[in-house]
Order: sequence, then structure tokens, then C-alpha cells
Amino acid sequence: MPEPIIRAFGVLKKCAAKVNMEYGLDQSIGKAIMQAAQEVAEGKLNDHFPLVVWQTGSGTQSNMNANEVISNRAAEIMGHKRGEKSVHPNDHVNKSQSSNDTFPTVMHIAAAMEINSRLIPELKNLHSALHSKSVEFKDIVKIGRTHTQDATPLTLGQEFSGYATQVKYGIDRVSGTLPRMYQLAQGGTAVGTGLNTKKGFDVKIAATVAEETKLPFVTAENKFEALAAHDAFVETSGALNTIAASLMKIANDIRFLGSGPRCGLGELILPENEPGSSIMPGKVNPTQCEALTMVCAQVMGNHVAITVGGSNGHFELNVFKPLMASALLHSIRLVSDASASFVKNCVKGIQANKDRISKLLHESLMLVTSLNPKIGYNNAAAVAKKAHKEGSSLKEAALNLGMLTEEELESLVVPEKMIAPSD
Amino acid sequence: MPEPIIRAFGVLKKCAAKVNMEYGLDQSIGKAIMQAAQEVAEGKLNDHFPLVVWQTGSGTQSNMNANEVISNRAAEIMGHKRGEKSVHPNDHVNKSQSSNDTFPTVMHIAAAMEINSRLIPELKNLHSALHSKSVEFKDIVKIGRTHTQDATPLTLGQEFSGYATQVKYGIDRVSGTLPRMYQLAQGGTAVGTGLNTKKGFDVKIAATVAEETKLPFVTAENKFEALAAHDAFVETSGALNTIAASLMKIANDIRFLGSGPRCGLGELILPENEPGSSIMPGKVNPTQCEALTMVCAQVMGNHVAITVGGSNGHFELNVFKPLMASALLHSIRLVSDASASFVKNCVKGIQANKDRISKLLHESLMLVTSLNPKIGYNNAAAVAKKAHKEGSSLKEAALNLGMLTEEELESLVVPEKMIAPSD
Amino acid sequence: MPEPIIRAFGVLKKCAAKVNMEYGLDQSIGKAIMQAAQEVAEGKLNDHFPLVVWQTGSGTQSNMNANEVISNRAAEIMGHKRGEKSVHPNDHVNKSQSSNDTFPTVMHIAAAMEINSRLIPELKNLHSALHSKSVEFKDIVKIGRTHTQDATPLTLGQEFSGYATQVKYGIDRVSGTLPRMYQLAQGGTAVGTGLNTKKGFDVKIAATVAEETKLPFVTAENKFEALAAHDAFVETSGALNTIAASLMKIANDIRFLGSGPRCGLGELILPENEPGSSIMPGKVNPTQCEALTMVCAQVMGNHVAITVGGSNGHFELNVFKPLMASALLHSIRLVSDASASFVKNCVKGIQANKDRISKLLHESLMLVTSLNPKIGYNNAAAVAKKAHKEGSSLKEAALNLGMLTEEELESLVVPEKMIAPSD
Amino acid sequence: MPEPIIRAFGVLKKCAAKVNMEYGLDQSIGKAIMQAAQEVAEGKLNDHFPLVVWQTGSGTQSNMNANEVISNRAAEIMGHKRGEKSVHPNDHVNKSQSSNDTFPTVMHIAAAMEINSRLIPELKNLHSALHSKSVEFKDIVKIGRTHTQDATPLTLGQEFSGYATQVKYGIDRVSGTLPRMYQLAQGGTAVGTGLNTKKGFDVKIAATVAEETKLPFVTAENKFEALAAHDAFVETSGALNTIAASLMKIANDIRFLGSGPRCGLGELILPENEPGSSIMPGKVNPTQCEALTMVCAQVMGNHVAITVGGSNGHFELNVFKPLMASALLHSIRLVSDASASFVKNCVKGIQANKDRISKLLHESLMLVTSLNPKIGYNNAAAVAKKAHKEGSSLKEAALNLGMLTEEELESLVVPEKMIAPSD
Repeated sequence: MPEPIIRAFGVLKKCAAKVNMEYGLDQSIGKAIMQAAQEVAEGKLNDHFPLVVWQTGSGTQSNMNANEVISNRAAEIMGHKRGEKSVHPNDHVNKSQSSNDTFPTVMHIAAAMEINSRLIPELKNLHSALHSKSVEFKDIVKIGRTHTQDATPLTLGQEFSGYATQVKYGIDRVSGTLPRMYQLAQGGTAVGTGLNTKKGFDVKIAATVAEETKLPFVTAENKFEALAAHDAFVETSGALNTIAASLMKIANDIRFLGSGPRCGLGELILPENEPGSSIMPGKVNPTQCEALTMVCAQVMGNHVAITVGGSNGHFELNVFKPLMASALLHSIRLVSDASASFVKNCVKGIQANKDRISKLLHESLMLVTSLNPKIGYNNAAAVAKKAHKEGSSLKEAALNLGMLTEEELESLVVPEKMIAPSD
Repeated sequence: MPEPIIRAFGVLKKCAAKVNMEYGLDQSIGKAIMQAAQEVAEGKLNDHFPLVVWQTGSGTQSNMNANEVISNRAAEIMGHKRGEKSVHPNDHVNKSQSSNDTFPTVMHIAAAMEINSRLIPELKNLHSALHSKSVEFKDIVKIGRTHTQDATPLTLGQEFSGYATQVKYGIDRVSGTLPRMYQLAQGGTAVGTGLNTKKGFDVKIAATVAEETKLPFVTAENKFEALAAHDAFVETSGALNTIAASLMKIANDIRFLGSGPRCGLGELILPENEPGSSIMPGKVNPTQCEALTMVCAQVMGNHVAITVGGSNGHFELNVFKPLMASALLHSIRLVSDASASFVKNCVKGIQANKDRISKLLHESLMLVTSLNPKIGYNNAAAVAKKAHKEGSSLKEAALNLGMLTEEELESLVVPEKMIAPSD
Repeated sequence: MPEPIIRAFGVLKKCAAKVNMEYGLDQSIGKAIMQAAQEVAEGKLNDHFPLVVWQTGSGTQSNMNANEVISNRAAEIMGHKRGEKSVHPNDHVNKSQSSNDTFPTVMHIAAAMEINSRLIPELKNLHSALHSKSVEFKDIVKIGRTHTQDATPLTLGQEFSGYATQVKYGIDRVSGTLPRMYQLAQGGTAVGTGLNTKKGFDVKIAATVAEETKLPFVTAENKFEALAAHDAFVETSGALNTIAASLMKIANDIRFLGSGPRCGLGELILPENEPGSSIMPGKVNPTQCEALTMVCAQVMGNHVAITVGGSNGHFELNVFKPLMASALLHSIRLVSDASASFVKNCVKGIQANKDRISKLLHESLMLVTSLNPKIGYNNAAAVAKKAHKEGSSLKEAALNLGMLTEEELESLVVPEKMIAPSD
Repeated sequence: MPEPIIRAFGVLKKCAAKVNMEYGLDQSIGKAIMQAAQEVAEGKLNDHFPLVVWQTGSGTQSNMNANEVISNRAAEIMGHKRGEKSVHPNDHVNKSQSSNDTFPTVMHIAAAMEINSRLIPELKNLHSALHSKSVEFKDIVKIGRTHTQDATPLTLGQEFSGYATQVKYGIDRVSGTLPRMYQLAQGGTAVGTGLNTKKGFDVKIAATVAEETKLPFVTAENKFEALAAHDAFVETSGALNTIAASLMKIANDIRFLGSGPRCGLGELILPENEPGSSIMPGKVNPTQCEALTMVCAQVMGNHVAITVGGSNGHFELNVFKPLMASALLHSIRLVSDASASFVKNCVKGIQANKDRISKLLHESLMLVTSLNPKIGYNNAAAVAKKAHKEGSSLKEAALNLGMLTEEELESLVVPEKMIAPSD
């Protein structure tokens, strides 16, 4: 069971005690529970949660585990011996709650916290790093490639601006799912009706969790949906899946652009993280790209697991909760950590191989199109064909055919003019 | 190639001609193109698009097809013979465009139009139908089921309110993806730089498409992203995937609640669409649920296809465009049509089998919890155990044990009081 | 990094040392390596493998880890100090090997061993348990259900025989993938050519691994395929995915058939594993079904991860190796453990609720078809309609209509005669 | 509804009539049915099957459609008017059958026929084409690439032998699933018991289908499994999914190896299928690779759809039959057609760009390893570093450092000796 779930139980049980005190829970018991729960929220009692994912599909065992740990610790805080049950796991810690509403609540708290404290910051760092590169490389004109074939030029900065935009939208995508993630099931109890709670309990507990976490949690407008379906998890996993598709594309591009040192594209020089081959200078394996793309594959897989789990709920309760929680939190963690590592160990250190970029650009036949206005389409084609046949440069071919002077060629074939709309 | 793509080509080429006229395209040619393109947009020339999905990954063939059809028809409108090329497919119809920016543009136009004109209205109808049922059934108290086991009661209306909420959020989900779907690649031309366009062309064409479609299209803020990645399709497909998970859950519940007529749960009476078995009255196969769940499975599958396609773009161009367009439009169409059919042929006609619902509710042992306050937990448990052992009702068992009078029982065991928080 | 990979490294390195001794490796060094590698194979040095999955996509770090651990331990065995490099990790332990061929080799060894020692035995146990139930229940005639609706009868034993057959075929499926799993890449070295090995090394090492593991490993007939693709993993994961689909169906059936205690189908009584609700006798949550179906969802997800990884190799090396290894071994372990638990804690203890089964069967209207031969289709239909309308039994309706005597009815309506083809 | 399903209905109904005649069906009616069904099997009556996939999940409507079409046509053959029902769709054409066993039977017949007549032959052609290329290219030594980085050499033939092996194993994989695909559900009728059939009917009809199709169909050993689960479809789709992963890898390699003409790897010259750019000679878009990889993505998606459908059956009947049939047949057709096109329009015409291959190979620094034995590791490393630093060739660097003579270099640096194990 992922640690964020355990911590979220701490948050929830602390808030529940606080609200229950408003509804009559003994103050000293309530305060002890709050203190004990705070320790759980801080991860101090992790060792007491020998939880596994493959348990009851409602997460009941995890909820009971939390109740037991907190009641024992609270009793201890109050000066009682462990096991004395002066603080009762059910009557006090779990008061007005059911596994069926607590587990989905901690799923949402854990996911929202991980997204806000881990995923989005790391994606912002990645965006920032890619954006910086796009600025750094803004004047480096290079050959474009479509269908993996040579195409008209663009700047390396423009290429990286595409990557940066993908990540920026990724942040928008995952943020766009949060309104439903901020909805808490708490107060629905066993089947969504709120049996055994008092009116207003649901609103108060959501407000307390919001205050505690500084995140805008609200009570779910429909508790039946909140227990019986976890569409919010399927949705957020869909955002992660889109981010994985983006990162797969970016990492693939970077490793191909950095392929070589002699027999690949060689436009990028990737940072050497591992002690490189001492005999083979320049051979830098794109290990960061590899780790990142492996993560992307797993995130895509987890997404299917979450989708299958999410679609197979029945009646008042979806019983794939631990699986869905575990898979989404796993995906969030993987993307966060892999992004952080990719920024630090790859993106920041990427250098442009300007000589290589320039060489490829000027060897390209695509530049011939800039001769059209001067010598006409047919003549331009003749130049390109000659160059292709002979393996020569466009310049050589054009001069050879006597169509233009060297000055004319140099004033016409200017890749720098091909990278934007014209005035 | 799905029809919405063809129609979107009509929209785009019409708008391109309009904008190109501002940039100097001959007015009579421009107007003829607009008229011809309008016919394509209306589906009148569908027969001239023998397009297949499994072509070039950039959709080049489809773009050229559109250019040819429109130029021929425009020439005809202008009184020229077909094939005379007085209206040139490239120089006029495709002016300032490239397959690489037109195809992603029509992908976005087609998807946005289908979502707005088809998917969201049908989902709204479905939401409305489910919400109506939730109102209709608001006073029918029934047994709840968690872990597929008997649980505390709720109303049938509450159960349907959960379904309605799932669909409502589904509308929010797909709507939330539209900001990125409204971004058009047009103006990026071959690699995203806008080579061969004039400054402002991109903004103008997006504005014209917006005006034409009454949808808030804008020019993509980054054309490199818009050509090289189709994350917007992966994202929107993710919303469809979530909706599919919701609908799978709803359809499964409905067929199980309608199972029978004698040996199932039997709480719902589903409308009989096909001529039923003449000898087997009451056996109504939930064919609408079956069609809907089959659609959901295909949508989940298409989502993986789109994800794989979206993650495998390289450099300046993703070349899974026709596959991604086809799969997403297929999913949109399937969910739309299946929802419409489900509303009409299933949801609207669902009736509550009140006798059965009441019988099950009152046979349930879950109601024993309401005796706790009066006779205590241990005695209540004894009642339940006796009833379970003897297969009798709680009432019989309680009376038999002499624990309560019939009046007491009737005043205490009131499922109607178990469906909400208490005051 | 899953433990079976570490152990497989032990197996491989032991075998490599043995073969290398035939090719001239110093005998005392070779023997020390064999002994050290044996300890790795037995899991004794697991602590020295702080391996993570998200590393280089070739698994190079894991191979180097194994080389280091084994050389250090071998040196120790020979009486040298750790770190002295009297046994060299590269020159001795990794002799004639490359990460690029060792890692795929250990992937195959680990998967084949886990399948043979864990998965297939547990699936056989599951098959056996289901088959035993099918025999135990062979005389219990019950209502059939198609489209979740009442259908003609079958025995509970027949129903379980379907489950048993699914599992039996699952064993056939995974076994059918083993011929390709038994092919070892070892001897391909860096790119598949076998550079830096001697002729025959590949065949000898496969034979040695076969001898060591008692499994029929052979050298891969094409080493280029064996390094550049891991289709064998995609294939075997496909078998696991099929098994997951089977188990999902079986677990779903069992929880639905065991639903209740009062308001579900109630045909099966599932064993109560957790201390049940003291106040709610008979409410047994199907936790084993829940854990199993969660596992199935994860296996389906892992399958997509493996497919994405498997399809994204480039040139001479697939660099999704650790991900693919980890996901497949995870799936194998999950299915194995969940099957074992399902057998022990669920299947073996399933009891038929004979009274309930009989009640439902005899209430069913489907039995009316057996009256056809005697009273004709129209009259039989009239009986069924009357029973359906009045909620009465077929017998009551038929007697009421005066169509048959009680004796006739009892001789005609015999579900036991409806469960097989006629003579 | 895919055409192979319709044709398979023809096959099945013809065989059913033949067997039913043995069990007493009027000979003249039986013969007329056989003739009519043969026409369906030949696709002559396709127009009479306005079938859609999104119908009842049992395929009942398709079965009834087949019964109606065949009975009408049979009556016509017998000289009766259409609609006269002299040949009854249920009593005669559907005799001893149920939708629940006929539809899975035609699913299996259709899939097995398509696999044998279409998929396997096309995969064999693909294997043969790739194998031919591997022979044709056997002496072309080229640089290897691992991690997309330069690695030790291999021959282009060896590279293609890896592709050929992948396809060969793909054939083995799909063939390995056929034993379960050859099992026919026919004879199980409504729930698998065979009610309303005579003993032996199932065996006879499978034998008749086998004779008719020349494929080794047998009766399913367990009819309950055969109706309630379609694991055989999930399994075969898994084989298709593996083949898709293989083809994705092959197509990606080929487009990257053929990338250029100037700024890519450029080792392969791909056939130019579309009229190329007249001005841009040598720019050949790898459209066949693009179509093939799009197909692979869809097949992976269909696999998930089939898995979801296959896992969601309940009790005696899986009701995702039309979806599963449609998706698998779609995948089979896509892979078959795309393979055929890929062979014809791509593989056969692939040429090695020998000059480019040789240039890259000899520029590579990887060849330095062959100097080790002569000048030692340190000196070899110095040569490589100098070459890398100066952008010079190994030869230049070595001569410059005065370490070897030109003759020595030429005798030592022989890539041809690096492509196999040594003696």
C-alpha cells in the first residue's frame, strides 16, 4: 500500500476527530486522536502499516489498520497502555465513518497531495528546463524532419519549444482533472446515504481537510457516485497517460537527435552520466531517455489497469479501490521522479552540436526551394537532381550548371529566412 | 476515412479561400472555391472521397483529395470543364497550406464539431433521462449492495442519482479537454514554422473557422507541438475512456438489477425491445446494456490505439494522424449513438419492480441494526442469527424471542429513516 | 528489480564460468565464481543487489552489479580481500558476455523458472480445486443464466467444469509460449553477432543452463532477434492476459452466485475468511474474489506496458528490458499468489446452497418448455403467462388452468432431464 | 458485421442441414438448405445481411438473419415463394441449434478460416521477403546500433534475419493458438448442456465443418466454457498483438534506416511508391511503414477491446460476442492486408545504400577495438580520443600518432572479421 495512502489516513482521521469533537466526542480523546493521527500523517508510524494492496477491494483492512494504530497511539498519549482500548478504534477513531467512505476519501487526499506537491512541481521544472533550452537554442537553425525525412528548416529552439508546450499542456491536463479529485466521499458512510452521520458532517469534514492540507477539497456533491465509481481516478490516470505519450515523444526525439557519435543524427550532445566507455569517446548512452520511456510504458499500462478496475464496480461500491489507488499513485510517483531525473541528468546538460547541425543543414537538398523565385521551378529541380545524383552540394550543382553566381547563391539560400512566416 | 474529416476539409478550405482572398487570391476563384468547399462541408461530394485510413501517416492523400475535388468543382462552378485546372488544387485551393498543417486542423475541427453537435447533446440527454429516473424513483427504498452483498438501504432514486452524476461529470470531462482541441495547427505549414505563409495568416484562418463553425477555435500557440504531437487527441480519448468506464458500470448495474424474471435480482423491469419469447413471459434480454457495454470495450481499445499512435511521433511530424483521427471519431460516434439508443430504448422505459424491491428490502437482515438502540447490540445480533439460521424474517425471529412487540418492531424497523444523515 | 532476475544472474554466471573453464578460464577462478554465483542463485546475496528497474534500458547496471558481487565473493572464497580484483568482474565473471546478451538471457531464465516452479503449479492447483468442485456439485441441478436472465437448467458441476476448463486451457496457453521463452540470447554479445565469443559458446552455455535448471533451454536460433526484440515476453504476457480474463470471469461469477445473504442470488456459500460481522450473520464479503479481480486488472495493465515496451525497440537492441522483465515477473507472481490464495481461502470452501438453488430452479418459468410435447406450445405459453402475471408457480398455474394433473406435471417437469442431449 | 462471419454462417448452416438430415430432417428441405447456405458461404447473399455489430451481445440477431435468409432462399430453390415458410427458419434451418452455440461457432470458423487463408499466407510472404533480403544483404557489413548509439558491426543481412525471425515466430505464435480456435461450441445449444440436441450431434457437426473447410475443427470438449467465455479470442488476439509489436519494430527500423536523403541514417533506399517530389529528389516518405505502424496501433487497441469484452462475461453466456468477433477479424484483416502491401510496396524494393553504409561504418570509432591486441588498450583509447576530438578518422589519428603503419591498420581494422564468433 503506497505511503501517501497511509499519510492521508492520518490527515483524515485527524480531521474526523476534530469534527467529531464538534459533534460531542470527548475532547481529551479527540485531541489524543488528533495528535496520534498527525504522527501518521507525518509518516512516523509507517512501520505499523504492514498493508498490502491485494486485500479486500474496499480497503477495509487499511481503514481498520489506521483505526487500530491511531487508537493505540492515542491511548498511549493519554497515558494508557496499548491495547487497553480507552480510545476505541471503531467508536472513537472511526466515529461516523465507514471503510466505504474513508478509503475513497484517502484515495482522493493522497492523489491530490501527490499531484500538487510532487507531480506538478516536477512537471513545472521540466517545462522550465525545456523552455530554457528553447531560448538557449533559439538561433540555431537546423534541418527539419517529417516522415523521418529531411524537410524545411527550423531552429533547434523551435523544436524544444514544441516539447515545452507539450509539458505545459500536460500540467493543464492534470490540473483540469483536480475539480473532481477535490471531491471527498466522506460522509457517505456505508452506501452513500450518510447513515450514522449527522447532517453537515460531510461538509465540515471536507472543510477541515481543506484547511489541513491547504487544498480546496469539498464534499462530493453525490456520495453514491463517490463510493460506487472512481471515475475521477480513471480521468486523472488519463491525464497521466497523455503526459506519458508526450514524454515518450520527447525522450525518443532527444535520443535520436543525440544518436551517434558518428553514425547517427548527432545534432545533440547528451550529458554523460555514467562513467563512459574509456575507449569509446563520444558514445553516450541515452540512459535517461531509456528510464523515462520505460516509465511512460508502465504509466500507459497502469492506465489500463485503472480503467479496467474503474469500469468493474457493482451497485453501491467499487471494490477495486486499493488497486486503483496503488496504480495511480505509482504512476504519479514514476512520472514525478523520472521527470526530476530527466531534468537534472539530461535536459539541463544537453548541448547543441552546432557543427554537425550546420553541416547537415547545408548539405540538405531541401534548401533548393529558395531558388525558385530566381531561376524558376524547373531549373531549381534540375539543380537538386544533379546534386542528388552526384552527391554534391546544391551550391556546387548550381555553379556547375552555371545558373547562378556564388554571390547570388549565398544571398538566396538563407535558411534563417525559412523559419517563420513572411511579412 | 470518417465523414466528419471530409466535411471538416470543406470547412477549412472554405475558410482558407476566404482568408487567401484577403491576401490576394483572385476573388472569382476564391468565391468559387468557397462555394465548392461549402458543398464538401455539407457532405454533398462525399462520393468523391474514396479515402482510406491506412494511407500516409500525415493524411497527405486526403488533403490532396480535397484539393482536387474542390478545384474541379470550383472550376465547374466558374464554367470551366473539369480537369482544366483553371482552379489549381495546389496553387489556389491549398494556397499557404501544407498537408502537415491542414490534416491536424481538420482533425481538430472534426472532433470539436462531433463533440459539440453529437456527443455532448447525447450525453446531456442521457444525463437528463437518468436524472428523471432518479426523481421518479426517489421514494422507493431498496436494499443497498456493497461487495455484491446486502447492505444498508438507499432509495432507487439515490442509486440512479449516482449514475446521473457519473454522466454529468463525463460531460465536464470531455468539455474540459476542448480548450486544447480548439487550437488549430493551420499556419504551421510543413514543419511548424509557417514558411510560405504571411504573418497573421494563422490567426485569421482560426478566426474564420471559428466564425464558420460557431466554435471558439483559435490558432495553436505553438505550431511545432500542433504538428509533431496529437496529445489533444490522446487527452480527449482519455475523457471518452472515462465515460466508457462510467457507462460500463451503469449498464452492468442495470442489467443485474433487471436480471430475472424469477432467478435474478429483479428490482428493475427493463423495456422489451425485441419481440420477446412468446412462451417465456418476462424474459427480457438487456440488449441495450449489451450493445452499450460492447461499445465501451471498443472505446477503451481505441484509446490504447490512440495512445500508442500519439506516443510514437518523431521530430516535426506525428505520422499516425489518420489512425488517431479515425479512432477518436469512431469512439465519439459510438458513445453518442449508443447513448442515444440507450436512452430511447432502455432508460426511459425502465420501471421499478416495487413489489420485488419491497420484498427483498424487508427480507434483509441488514435492518436489524435499527434495533440496537432499543434492545442492545447483543440482543439484536441474537435476532439476526436466529433469522439467518431459520430462514425467517427479522420480525418473526424477534417476536419469537419475545424481545419486542409487533408495534415496537414496526416503529423501529423503518428503512425510510436509514437513507440520510440524521438531524 | 525482481528477485528472480537476481537469482537468474546467479544461474547464468555459474554456467558461464563453467563453460569459460572449457575455453581456458583459470580453473580455480572459475570454481570460485561458480560457488559465488551459486550463492546468488540461492538468494543469499540479495542484499548486495540494490537494483532499480528504472535504469538503463539494457539492464547494464544489473549485469555489472552481478559481476561485481560475484567477483568480490569469489575473491573472498579464494581467500583474497574484497576489492582486490583477483577475480575480475569483467575479464573473468563477464567473460565472453555483454550486458546486451546477459540481461535478455536472465529475463528468459527468470520467467521460465517462475512459470514452471510457481505459475503452472498454482494454476494446476486451481484447476484441480475447480475440477473437484465440479465433481462434488455434479448432481446439483440449477437454473442457467444467459444475458443475466433465467435460462434452461444445468448442474452446478457443469458450471464449475467450465471454469476448470478455462484454467486448464490457461495452462496450455502459457505452456505454448515456452518454446520461445526457452531460447537464450547468450552468445550474441553486443549486437547479436557473437563478437568476442568462440564458436560453440552459445550452444554450450544454453546446454549448461538447461542442465542446471532442468528446463529445456536452447540457444536462440537468431541472436539478432533475441537482443533487438522481446516478443517472447509480449507473447507470454498475452497468455497471462488471457488467464486474467478467465479468472476475472470466474471470480465475478462466484461473487455473484454467492451474493446475498438474502437479496442476491445466494446459490453459493463462500467461506468466511475474515471475522464476519457479529451482528450480520451470513454477510460474507467475497474478499478473495476482490483480490483476484484486482490482480487481473493489474495483469491486463502490465500487458499493455509490456506491449508498448516490446514494440519500441530500435535497431540492434530493445532498451525496455528492465521494464518488460519487471512487469512480466510481477504478473506471473500476482497470478500465482492470487490463485493460491483463491484456492485455499475460497474455492475449497465453497458450498452449494442447495435449498436456495432448488427454490430458484423450481420457481423458474423456463421449465415450462418441458410441457410442450404434452399440451402444445400455445397451452404451455398460457401456463407461463398466467404464472408470470400472478407470480405463481408453473405448477399452480397449470393446475389452475386444469390442463394437467399433479402427477402429469411431476413426471413432465424434470429439470434433471434438461441437462444433456437426448438419446 | 464482418463478411467472414456471414460466410461462416453459410458454412455452419450447410453442415447443420447435412447432419440434421442424418437425424431425420426431410431430405429435400435439407438439400435446399445446403444449397442456399452454400450461396451464403460464397458471399452471394451478402446484401441480405444488413447486420451491425452493436446488437445483442449474443449475436442472436445475426443468427436469425442467417436463418431467415437461408430459409427464404431454400424455399425459392424448392420452387416456393419467399415468405411461404415452407422451409422454416427455426424448425429447419436452426434445427438443434441456438444463437448461443451458433454464434460462437461461426466466430471460430470465421477466425480460423481468415487466419489460415489470409493471415498466415501473408505473414509467410512477409517472412519470405524479409528472408530474401537477409540473403541478398548478407555480405554488406554495416555499423550496429545499440541504445541508438554506434556499436560493433554486423551485416545488413543479419539485421534483416532478425526481422525475418520475428515474423517466423509470429506465424508460430498464431498457429499455436489454433488448437483452441478449432474447438466448436456447436451442440451446446442455450447454456452448454446440449438440450434439444441428440447425442453425437456435436461431434458430427464439427466433423462436417472440418470436412467442408478442410480445417481440423473438433467439438469443444467443454461446451460451458465455449459459450460463457471466449478466451480463445483473447488468446489469438494476444498473438496478433505480439505480431503487431514485431511489425512496429521492423517498420520503425526500416524508416529510420531509410531516413534522409541527406540528413538521416540513409542506409536503406526505400521504393518510391507515390509520385515523389519533383523538386526534391531522394525524398521518399516511408508511407508503407506509416500505414503498417498505424495498423499495429489499432491491433494493440483492438486487443484491449477484446480483453475487456472477454473478461466481462457472466454465468452461462459471454455477451460481448459481436464486438469480440468484429475486433479480432478486423485485426486479422488489417495485419494481413498491411503485410501484403508492405511486402509488395516496400520490402521487395528495398535497396542497400552501399556507399552510405560503407562510409558510416568506416567513420565509426567502434572499430578501434580491433587495435587492442596490437597496441594495447591505452593506446587504442588514445587513438579514438584523438579522432573524436579532431573529427578525423581512426586511421588518420593512428597514423598521426605514429602508432601503426597504413598496412598494419588495414590488416587490423577489418569489420568483416567482427561479425561472428571466432574459431
